[in-house]
Amino acid sequence: MTETYRLHYAPDNASLIIRLALEELGLPYSCVLVDRAAAAHKTPAYLALNPNGLIPVLETSEGVMFETGAILLWLADRHGRLAPPIQSPERGDFLKWLFFLANTLHPALRMTFYPSQYVGEDQSAQEKLRRHMQGEIARHLDTLEGLAASDPALLCAPEMSALDLYLGPLLRWMVFYPAPQGGTDWFSIKKWSRLHDMVTRLESRGCVIAAIRAEGLGKTPFSAPIYATPPEGSAT
Amino acid sequence: MTETYRLHYAPDNASLIIRLALEELGLPYSCVLVDRAAAAHKTPAYLALNPNGLIPVLETSEGVMFETGAILLWLADRHGRLAPPIQSPERGDFLKWLFFLANTLHPALRMTFYPSQYVGEDQSAQEKLRRHMQGEIARHLDTLEGLAASDPALLCAPEMSALDLYLGPLLRWMVFYPAPQGGTDWFSIKKWSRLHDMVTRLESRGCVIAAIRAEGLGKTPFSAPIYATPPEGSAT
Repeated sequence: MTETYRLHYAPDNASLIIRLALEELGLPYSCVLVDRAAAAHKTPAYLALNPNGLIPVLETSEGVMFETGAILLWLADRHGRLAPPIQSPERGDFLKWLFFLANTLHPALRMTFYPSQYVGEDQSAQEKLRRHMQGEIARHLDTLEGLAASDPALLCAPEMSALDLYLGPLLRWMVFYPAPQGGTDWFSIKKWSRLHDMVTRLESRGCVIAAIRAEGLGKTPFSAPIYATPPEGSAT
Repeated sequence: MTETYRLHYAPDNASLIIRLALEELGLPYSCVLVDRAAAAHKTPAYLALNPNGLIPVLETSEGVMFETGAILLWLADRHGRLAPPIQSPERGDFLKWLFFLANTLHPALRMTFYPSQYVGEDQSAQEKLRRHMQGEIARHLDTLEGLAASDPALLCAPEMSALDLYLGPLLRWMVFYPAPQGGTDWFSIKKWSRLHDMVTRLESRGCVIAAIRAEGLGKTPFSAPIYATPPEGSAT
């Protein structure tokens, strides 16, 4: 494998999920810091890579990739790991939950973190969105906990899949997403024991240890997260 | 091809997208009406198929599929049409825009149609969400119009792809998503000429003609939509 990937990232952003996949697959890659503080992801140069102005972008020898779920699936398929092969009977279950993470759980988190991108500047509407979506997120985590119980080979299996690499960082970020009136105690990973076990196991993987170093994530980035103190750039 | 699929649908719901794909691929399938008026998609029997209680569900010989984007991709890959093959250099571009439709454009539409599912019952917050997301949707359509111009083989190509089958119904539904204060004139497909051409072309395809008949969608379901008058069930 001589192909080199180029990951446009900001510390502790969705690009973390792609970094974990690149590391887990043992692929060579270089990083380009996107300076969020200077809104570098909204510059013409970045928009030429991703017209939606979102992080991450992954440059490949075949073109520019974006959308976290799409990059994960593409990498897994290209390198034959982290997702069931296309003809496998497990492929359907994998895809439906990958899309669920990408179009339901991940957006729900974004809504609680960036409510103004959904309701504009009205504070009351922002709080209503946050409060409602935090209830929705808890419901989705109940569903995923149930899935890990009923289909232990699919989610939270000892053999990591792209689903776990996606879900782990989402669970990390929940701690940082404030509740209305500034409370942060709406979420505790310990409420969902299988998800908790999965992220604890994830923390011993080489891919996570590499990410901790590169992005300043602390020793227990998923089971007991603290704010990132990255060697370069900033998370927001 | 002897496999028979079983589509759980409601007229003019997201299941329409899957119906178009099944028809376009020429696959045998049967339909099960989900009686939305009786909240049949929230019953234990339906939740056993899809714990998220959403339409569509597609039963296959290998298990139960849900999530519109996942079903589309799975069908396309299984039957070798509507998506570039996994090793094709076009695969990455296809995947990133499929995920964009699934996690950005489709949810944005849902937010304008079912705002209470995001902000709860507060009317003012619902209007703010609707208004803001309609602006976002228009921006996304500008992006897609630009994509059809810059990469005419990817989107809105004469050779239909799963992206077009997904986007067509989304464009239909925009007409029905009311603006705040009940206005409906925020959207006109004619503002985006390439998207307009694509849906007009779509209307002459056999898959759409079959869907018009099955779900009562009228003669021009994408270029000049009217509310569905389905032979069975109801859209809401």
